[in-house]
Amino acid sequence: MTASTGQLSGPLLPTDSSATTLRPVAAARVTGGFWHARRSVNAATSVPAGHQRLIEAGNLHNLRLAAGTATGKYVNTLPFLDSDVYKWLEAVAWQLGDPGTGAAESAELAGLFAEVTELLADAQEPSGYLDSFYQVVRPDRRWQELEWGHELYCAGHLIQAAVAHTRATGRTELLAIARKFADHIDAVFGTGEGRVDGVCGHPEIETALVELFRVTGERRYLELARYFVDRRGHGLVPEGRFGSRYWQDHVPVREADAVAGHAVRQLYLLAGVVDVYAETGDASLLAAAERCWEEMAAEKTYLTGGLGSRHTDEAFGDPYELPSERAYTETCAAIASAMLSWRLLLATGKARYADHLERVLFNGFLAGVALDGEHYSYVNPLHVRDGYVPWGGDRGAFRTRWFHCACCPPNVMRLLSSLPHYLTASDGEGLVVHQYATGSYAAEGLAVEVATDYPWRGRIEVTVTGSPDADRTLTLRVPHWAAGRWTANAAGERVGADAESEGWLRIRRRWRTGDTVVLDLDLAPRLTAPPSRADALRGCLAIERGPLVYCTELADHPAGTALDDLRIDPAVPLRETAEPGLLDGVVTVTGAAVTPPPVLGLDWWPYGPASGERDQAERAGAAREFTAIPYHLWGHREQGAMRVWLPVIGSDPALADPGGPAAPNGSVR
Amino acid sequence: MTASTGQLSGPLLPTDSSATTLRPVAAARVTGGFWHARRSVNAATSVPAGHQRLIEAGNLHNLRLAAGTATGKYVNTLPFLDSDVYKWLEAVAWQLGDPGTGAAESAELAGLFAEVTELLADAQEPSGYLDSFYQVVRPDRRWQELEWGHELYCAGHLIQAAVAHTRATGRTELLAIARKFADHIDAVFGTGEGRVDGVCGHPEIETALVELFRVTGERRYLELARYFVDRRGHGLVPEGRFGSRYWQDHVPVREADAVAGHAVRQLYLLAGVVDVYAETGDASLLAAAERCWEEMAAEKTYLTGGLGSRHTDEAFGDPYELPSERAYTETCAAIASAMLSWRLLLATGKARYADHLERVLFNGFLAGVALDGEHYSYVNPLHVRDGYVPWGGDRGAFRTRWFHCACCPPNVMRLLSSLPHYLTASDGEGLVVHQYATGSYAAEGLAVEVATDYPWRGRIEVTVTGSPDADRTLTLRVPHWAAGRWTANAAGERVGADAESEGWLRIRRRWRTGDTVVLDLDLAPRLTAPPSRADALRGCLAIERGPLVYCTELADHPAGTALDDLRIDPAVPLRETAEPGLLDGVVTVTGAAVTPPPVLGLDWWPYGPASGERDQAERAGAAREFTAIPYHLWGHREQGAMRVWLPVIGSDPALADPGGPAAPNGSVR
Repeated sequence: MTASTGQLSGPLLPTDSSATTLRPVAAARVTGGFWHARRSVNAATSVPAGHQRLIEAGNLHNLRLAAGTATGKYVNTLPFLDSDVYKWLEAVAWQLGDPGTGAAESAELAGLFAEVTELLADAQEPSGYLDSFYQVVRPDRRWQELEWGHELYCAGHLIQAAVAHTRATGRTELLAIARKFADHIDAVFGTGEGRVDGVCGHPEIETALVELFRVTGERRYLELARYFVDRRGHGLVPEGRFGSRYWQDHVPVREADAVAGHAVRQLYLLAGVVDVYAETGDASLLAAAERCWEEMAAEKTYLTGGLGSRHTDEAFGDPYELPSERAYTETCAAIASAMLSWRLLLATGKARYADHLERVLFNGFLAGVALDGEHYSYVNPLHVRDGYVPWGGDRGAFRTRWFHCACCPPNVMRLLSSLPHYLTASDGEGLVVHQYATGSYAAEGLAVEVATDYPWRGRIEVTVTGSPDADRTLTLRVPHWAAGRWTANAAGERVGADAESEGWLRIRRRWRTGDTVVLDLDLAPRLTAPPSRADALRGCLAIERGPLVYCTELADHPAGTALDDLRIDPAVPLRETAEPGLLDGVVTVTGAAVTPPPVLGLDWWPYGPASGERDQAERAGAAREFTAIPYHLWGHREQGAMRVWLPVIGSDPALADPGGPAAPNGSVR
Repeated sequence: MTASTGQLSGPLLPTDSSATTLRPVAAARVTGGFWHARRSVNAATSVPAGHQRLIEAGNLHNLRLAAGTATGKYVNTLPFLDSDVYKWLEAVAWQLGDPGTGAAESAELAGLFAEVTELLADAQEPSGYLDSFYQVVRPDRRWQELEWGHELYCAGHLIQAAVAHTRATGRTELLAIARKFADHIDAVFGTGEGRVDGVCGHPEIETALVELFRVTGERRYLELARYFVDRRGHGLVPEGRFGSRYWQDHVPVREADAVAGHAVRQLYLLAGVVDVYAETGDASLLAAAERCWEEMAAEKTYLTGGLGSRHTDEAFGDPYELPSERAYTETCAAIASAMLSWRLLLATGKARYADHLERVLFNGFLAGVALDGEHYSYVNPLHVRDGYVPWGGDRGAFRTRWFHCACCPPNVMRLLSSLPHYLTASDGEGLVVHQYATGSYAAEGLAVEVATDYPWRGRIEVTVTGSPDADRTLTLRVPHWAAGRWTANAAGERVGADAESEGWLRIRRRWRTGDTVVLDLDLAPRLTAPPSRADALRGCLAIERGPLVYCTELADHPAGTALDDLRIDPAVPLRETAEPGLLDGVVTVTGAAVTPPPVLGLDWWPYGPASGERDQAERAGAAREFTAIPYHLWGHREQGAMRVWLPVIGSDPALADPGGPAAPNGSVR
């Protein structure tokens, strides 16, 4: 087995013998268009500001306390502040390996990276142990509070950051620290005599150890990852106030058939499970991960791709428990699901995983960071009511600069800085372009340039810039929402519908430089219905346009508009308008609605006899226009109501006889 | 001013000069029928078992630690375990004063009361201070953690228990302890030099101090209650993780126009506010309480009368945020709202408060205790999904015997043991019967016996058993749901509709013993529609019959029925059936529904293009019958799905043209 190293701007470089259908490709560069703009802000603003936040929030101070180079109190009560530093380092590392956004040239960024690496070297104990919280605050409780302690979680993020740095730059300073800690963990954990037999309350170490195996070739890291996967679900973690499902300890991984508990924990775990599968070929792991993903997609995923319905325990709800206003849908859960879907795409080659990746990237994930790259949301609801009052704590505000629990911002940074890596792949026969962004991509000798205004326009132009003198396949994804709504031509010739199968449009030929393939996806705005069991969404439709989910927002309507009272008229065609001056340039969608006069029963009690009265009132309501914007841009203007799901005219139930309640019979009086 | 004492089986005996429109009456006895059965179980099972639970859960042990008569560790981490003891004592006290359920004769119960009273006397410090948590666990933090410490909250429950004992039995042993503690609090708190200026994170002391004033005549307790009411809303409580709204410290009471934050805290506070109004005549307090109540009824109350939508902070949600499956609707919040509505009824004489009291008693409250009187629910959802998985912790189970945080069970006990007190009142002209239960009631010399099978049957027969030789008014409530659906006759003569005004049916005459008034309320099952802004309920109807909210439950349907897939047909009349053998005797309601064949878009993604397809599938679905039972009896059989709100046929939105999505124009492509 050959370990894979070398310059690559993203996580997950499978070994040559790994059991994946697709493989990531190193030669991916995003050079323009939608994602380039967001990535440029990430490089120019978010990542540098992130360092400042880590200073202000005490993360670096805490590490200096562990290193003995600072004095004072440990800042914050959470035990996982180190992980924010590691995720930021990972973002910097990918940035340093990416020539696309100008950061590679940034000696300043490289200097910051080196400085923090030195700090970590100073803080690391001779044994390899490194965790500022347990070094400073609870030195006598190491490895004894695995359920809430996050020691292995933090170690995982350290390892992933180190892998990133080595992969992106070839340097090994941070990798040496990570290996030393991993070796320590390898010596401490296990089922043998005198070892700690346990798993972390928050998965992350699993995927990181597989990555460490990939970059070092040391198989014992893979074995350790497998150990952590295998030992979960055997009651090693105390139940805690939320029960064993919270940390996925209620069932062995291979037997799971549904996602459960804390969403980020569940998704990081499954990412690690797919990684272990990829390097071991253990098919039962892939089967479990696919089963859980399918259950999640079918029953527990918001239209935005957001995951995790519950605030209380940041957890998945019951099937179809998808409330819009109380959607927790943590930004980190969106990121975690992108990590998982991408791994499953590589493992299986199924287009559905790429479809989901696209949905999350453009909606659930992107809503988590503002256009300015300095304001983040932790919670991403699909509805803000007229009369909404932010709940206490910084997670209740629409967007803030940092959080007491600041897991999301550096997670956003690391995904954006490694994003090009997630867009294309090799299937061994050529290049698979499964996400559309202007840039250059290559696999199996087939090099192309993609030019597109996606997601604003549906035209994707792929120009071959190099190919070997042999047949190669160019594979493009037809998103599920574009089924039957696309056209394509290759080198001027129409591509028939039969070239598409299960979401993949495959064109195989001997390519010549300058050959052009144009895929045209119909982005016309469409109305989408919810699953019929989703009570919170009943009677509503949502607007989608291409990969974007739309929402109405108070800012686009006259002051005083009650968005919650609008009833849309789905029979009136939607219109779309390019608005170059709005929110850095968007396409808005407008449609027709009515604001029915209020129909009240009693003046003090809002429930009343079922009748046709409301329906009639709605149809008599004043007609008006409504405007929708892409969901990921909500909350950028004055605070106010927002809705993704729009009630339609007639969605309040009416009896067949609108005169009054049904006549009873068989009375017991 | 004359303080009021004497035998009375419930809280709140206003002084003679109090500013109330109605006054409670002492001569209320429930002797048969629905509530008698529940109260008998409460007396025979719940209250005795409660003592056992207080032993097992460590509450009494903790007090013994404070008294120095036991050794060992303090049990439980919550600082308010004493309050469970006090609420249980209050329940015992009302029981001792009530000849109706046989408990008054129970020397054993009186012995237990005396035993615990002695324990409290032993635990009380010479200063009067009494709080086992702050005596044993944190002696150096007294009165310094008012936000979470619950010291004043516990004191309030001690005071109310003592008031109950004195009122019900004339004895003063516990009252002496309570006064001593109240005097200590009065010496500690205030705005003067060297005093603690603060309010408790959890209101309760306010209403208790007014009660203490009522029973002792000592005005300084009333003044202290007013101080605690006045000082709230001025930022004296630290913000905490849920913000100042959580403990109603975001706005002065007199300026509040909406309920907010933790539901029980809000409602206990408002109960105290009305009490202070009643004894001071401060109209701004009553106005604020009515304003908040009206906002709550119109925007934040479940059909069951349940309150508090959010699990995270046990709090009210935004207006119309009323999810059925995630309804927190704590049993204690239902009890607290009964306390508040009843106080507002007395203060104003408005029938709506009695309507709400009835709704809560028969639904949101009663769901909190099982027929066996030994199993309780903390959380009372209106929907349990097919595929529901109980969340971690004892609050997630349907019904359990006790809780880590066991506020609800003794709260249920004290309400049931004082229930007769809540049913009738005096308006100065005669007797107001605002709740219907078989028993004897009297006011202003007008004594009656009520005989009824309410809520199963709508006939209420009132027989005069005594009256002075002068005109007296007998007032009966016509519930809001019975408007236009009632008949009445008095002494054989039909009572005209004009005798009813704003929910009150008033009959004034010179009554003779043996005169009979019969009120007949039409209980025919009815379909109720939700407020149009309640997204979680859109497209659904609920079934009500008389004061009872109904629900469907898996136990009444063939195994494997997916309740969430039923679509009811509101055009088919509902039928009702008396089932004497089911759940101690109920009336069930049956109706027609279809189970449409599933309409799926993709096999992995449940959202799809809006079309008429679903609607057509529903109408083509197999017709079947569904059965509903009273909501308060759900969860008594095998665990399974349950629904209060039932989707109707056609509630999934369909386009005018069922062929596909609306055609776009104005494309940006």
